[in-house]
Amino acid sequence: MSQPDHITALDLNYPSRDELSPDFKKYFDVCDEKLGMVPNVLTAYSQNAAQLEVFSKFYNELMFGESNLTPLEREMIAVAVSSQNHCFYCIVAHGAAVRDYSGDPALGELIAINYRAANLSLRHRAMLDFAVKMTVSPDSIEEADRQALRDADFSDQDIWDIANVAGFYNMTNRIASAVDMQPNPEYHAKAR
Amino acid sequence: MSQPDHITALDLNYPSRDELSPDFKKYFDVCDEKLGMVPNVLTAYSQNAAQLEVFSKFYNELMFGESNLTPLEREMIAVAVSSQNHCFYCIVAHGAAVRDYSGDPALGELIAINYRAANLSLRHRAMLDFAVKMTVSPDSIEEADRQALRDADFSDQDIWDIANVAGFYNMTNRIASAVDMQPNPEYHAKAR
Amino acid sequence: MSQPDHITALDLNYPSRDELSPDFKKYFDVCDEKLGMVPNVLTAYSQNAAQLEVFSKFYNELMFGESNLTPLEREMIAVAVSSQNHCFYCIVAHGAAVRDYSGDPALGELIAINYRAANLSLRHRAMLDFAVKMTVSPDSIEEADRQALRDADFSDQDIWDIANVAGFYNMTNRIASAVDMQPNPEYHAKAR
Amino acid sequence: MSQPDHITALDLNYPSRDELSPDFKKYFDVCDEKLGMVPNVLTAYSQNAAQLEVFSKFYNELMFGESNLTPLEREMIAVAVSSQNHCFYCIVAHGAAVRDYSGDPALGELIAINYRAANLSLRHRAMLDFAVKMTVSPDSIEEADRQALRDADFSDQDIWDIANVAGFYNMTNRIASAVDMQPNPEYHAKAR
Amino acid sequence: MSQPDHITALDLNYPSRDELSPDFKKYFDVCDEKLGMVPNVLTAYSQNAAQLEVFSKFYNELMFGESNLTPLEREMIAVAVSSQNHCFYCIVAHGAAVRDYSGDPALGELIAINYRAANLSLRHRAMLDFAVKMTVSPDSIEEADRQALRDADFSDQDIWDIANVAGFYNMTNRIASAVDMQPNPEYHAKAR
Amino acid sequence: MSQPDHITALDLNYPSRDELSPDFKKYFDVCDEKLGMVPNVLTAYSQNAAQLEVFSKFYNELMFGESNLTPLEREMIAVAVSSQNHCFYCIVAHGAAVRDYSGDPALGELIAINYRAANLSLRHRAMLDFAVKMTVSPDSIEEADRQALRDADFSDQDIWDIANVAGFYNMTNRIASAVDMQPNPEYHAKAR
Repeated sequence: MSQPDHITALDLNYPSRDELSPDFKKYFDVCDEKLGMVPNVLTAYSQNAAQLEVFSKFYNELMFGESNLTPLEREMIAVAVSSQNHCFYCIVAHGAAVRDYSGDPALGELIAINYRAANLSLRHRAMLDFAVKMTVSPDSIEEADRQALRDADFSDQDIWDIANVAGFYNMTNRIASAVDMQPNPEYHAKAR
Repeated sequence: MSQPDHITALDLNYPSRDELSPDFKKYFDVCDEKLGMVPNVLTAYSQNAAQLEVFSKFYNELMFGESNLTPLEREMIAVAVSSQNHCFYCIVAHGAAVRDYSGDPALGELIAINYRAANLSLRHRAMLDFAVKMTVSPDSIEEADRQALRDADFSDQDIWDIANVAGFYNMTNRIASAVDMQPNPEYHAKAR
Repeated sequence: MSQPDHITALDLNYPSRDELSPDFKKYFDVCDEKLGMVPNVLTAYSQNAAQLEVFSKFYNELMFGESNLTPLEREMIAVAVSSQNHCFYCIVAHGAAVRDYSGDPALGELIAINYRAANLSLRHRAMLDFAVKMTVSPDSIEEADRQALRDADFSDQDIWDIANVAGFYNMTNRIASAVDMQPNPEYHAKAR
Repeated sequence: MSQPDHITALDLNYPSRDELSPDFKKYFDVCDEKLGMVPNVLTAYSQNAAQLEVFSKFYNELMFGESNLTPLEREMIAVAVSSQNHCFYCIVAHGAAVRDYSGDPALGELIAINYRAANLSLRHRAMLDFAVKMTVSPDSIEEADRQALRDADFSDQDIWDIANVAGFYNMTNRIASAVDMQPNPEYHAKAR
Repeated sequence: MSQPDHITALDLNYPSRDELSPDFKKYFDVCDEKLGMVPNVLTAYSQNAAQLEVFSKFYNELMFGESNLTPLEREMIAVAVSSQNHCFYCIVAHGAAVRDYSGDPALGELIAINYRAANLSLRHRAMLDFAVKMTVSPDSIEEADRQALRDADFSDQDIWDIANVAGFYNMTNRIASAVDMQPNPEYHAKAR
Repeated sequence: MSQPDHITALDLNYPSRDELSPDFKKYFDVCDEKLGMVPNVLTAYSQNAAQLEVFSKFYNELMFGESNLTPLEREMIAVAVSSQNHCFYCIVAHGAAVRDYSGDPALGELIAINYRAANLSLRHRAMLDFAVKMTVSPDSIEEADRQALRDADFSDQDIWDIANVAGFYNMTNRIASAVDMQPNPEYHAKAR
């Protein structure tokens, strides 16, 4: 398999494992253990210790913090948003997560390519319609769009959470594309 | 002046000042003191204490942390990105910041409306061209776009920072529009 | 406040006040008296006396002639259209008019940024939906769009007037951007 | 040939020839004599005598007034702009004019469909590139675009005139589409 | 009338009539007889005998094979699709066919410019709405779009045929534009 | 793995293997043997024997006929075009082919997501730039685009072939999306 020759296209100084703060050394060790790798997005942020700290905490809270959205649902949002933005890093990394959480390789592909072609539940379709509208034409969102989520049994707190996850990947997609961030090659074959 | 009748269009429970953690009570008090208000984005996030914590730290690091980008430059990126996304909250709040930092009310308007019509320095033009391309067509960014920043004397670390600030407002623009977040009315007349 | 260094980016001969025809000398004097300035768009057209004549008459008829549309409504259309086209001159000049006529500075900002985020009456929402659709995708207008205006109690003559005002700013937005027309700095602080 | 069953889709009162002011009665008679018809755009505006007056004078000045742009060039701009906006009325009416002035039926079709596919002189290509950019993305026009016209030997006054003609059809295209204005059937077979 | 100076912008070897296979010599002779010309698209493909064979058979089956769609309906799809793609070759050639089959020159113009401005039957409007959505945003087609065709009395086999004809012109439009294919000048005046 | 419950969303009669003509029975048997399946696109076309014949011959000629473009290059074009059109069927089927021919799973993903993020040779980059421009804005292709291919050492016959393959997938993408064609599940895990 072709190996990317860089983490990002920028000439930045990524600290060695030993140069990391003890907390992050431990965090990266846990990544190695659980995922078999440190996701390149974390390596990229490690060039700035303060940013690594706030980015990883923000990411972890949105993706793994308290919420009625399941981990699979948050990953589905990540992939549907990333599909619109054609983000190589995020589709590869989070597409693997959708395949993994759902046990359905075709579902990961479907959302990565065109979530409208997937045979989704009304709940998931409403959720992704909102996330994708936020991505493509955020200024056209109106009360009717929020109501469509309520009609699909999402609470207002759930809507807030959907908005935050969809917003987050509109950030990371753009940062990843801006710096040509490369996904770890381990993702490609995962859960196929 | 017309007062917005809500913080967001969502029915969420915003804690009173006394219900906030001591740290955030203090933080909000400082906001009151320095800005004459607590920005509504913080009130909105306060409905989820864990998210308020990670969001505000991430925001503060990107906007006020170590970087070669001046505070005005970061606000210029915020406004140029928000202009593309037609985000009411962000243009009002950060447009005020541009007017304030620059002492030039017309500059705030120009970037809020069309940064290309502004008579910017080559450095600032290159910076905003990159931030706006990230906003509008992130998948079309190429090495030539990064090189244009280097040619305008930005370092690779500066490029990372520009990408992060531009990415951040692509997130907050979408969250604010998704929940119809209203800017504090105090912003409108500020630094005109 | 930063002063624009030009009326337009074109090297044109603008006549002095005394070189104007008596009628236009008087007209410009009235502008000075009532507005504290001659709007730069008139100065720009003054380089061609015949064009100044027909443009200013057309403009005055559409904006101040007989119509069921109030002056504020015509200015709201002007600003909503100009927002889509990101026209610096027109948003600054007509945003000031909306603030002025409505006595509501926030309303001027809202329409300048995203009229969909404003809490408009059904009448005004229908009016701006039509004006903005004319701006963004005129070839997709159908009978249903005209019917939506009738349903909001506009007569067919009102529809004609809305179409003409919305059409007019699609012209002036493009001319102003094409020649980099600068708004008079007096507009920025007006009615904030 | 199918006859349109309306001038516009609006229920408006168009005066009979005898109800027109003497000046416009004469003007419409001249149209009949020279063109074999009164263009429907004039009939449409005749429902409001004051608007008919200012519109027709503005139109005549831009299309037939003093300018270095030839009548054919002004019509080429009209058609290229209208092609982008898919305006039925304007392409039919002004396409006929291009065929007529140029004596080249294929040229009328080419500009109506895709001016980039036409084998135009550098002058005409530069002129239409500017007019079409004004149409599609007016906020992205920059000094380089104006310079491209100067490099094709247009003076700054010519640029002003190109901008005005291109702006004008961006208005009329939208008004015609907004009210479903129908071209006179006589245009279709003209100069084929 | 201006004559195009090339079949395509590519430097390709088009065989003389005698160098064609006997079948295609006969086919081209029949074209001459019936149409008064060999359509340039066939001359273009003749540079590769194998491609000419499969292309012409595919084309003839879709346009003249068994189907509930009438020849006029297939040509209407061709022109509506080509209008979206601004394809000079296809609008000229198939616009002539619509004029010819329908006996209505204005209808050919209407569909070539903006089918929404045409006063079409519900059946034809539904058919072209589907074909144009396939053209502009194929990834947004959903079951509701297919159902709209069934509601207009199209069978599922008809939907397949509409999809194939609309798909076909999305191919030929792009090939024609890619190589600057010129329509035979005979088309321009046909059936006006 | 989730199995699609249909070949297409249309209610069509697909003949059994024995009902096929002897030639196609053999062809489908060979598919089974070589690919382990009959691609669903062929099953879909089999509902109309005449169309199956001409489609499959056209497809085979373009993808496997004489050309300087390698089979991998033709598949790269297929996937890059399909990525722009977000076609589930075509990205799954032809993405598998790119992975297979190239022996590089990451390359298949890259082109399926964003070919600009791939580290392609100048030749392949030029080839895909042309194919994608044909896909997104065919009416903006000009001589300079063709020259860019010549500068990358493509002959005019190669340009014709690139145009044909890129055109072909713009057709099949749209037909597949129009009828919700489902890819055979075997593709998903292939060559990962």
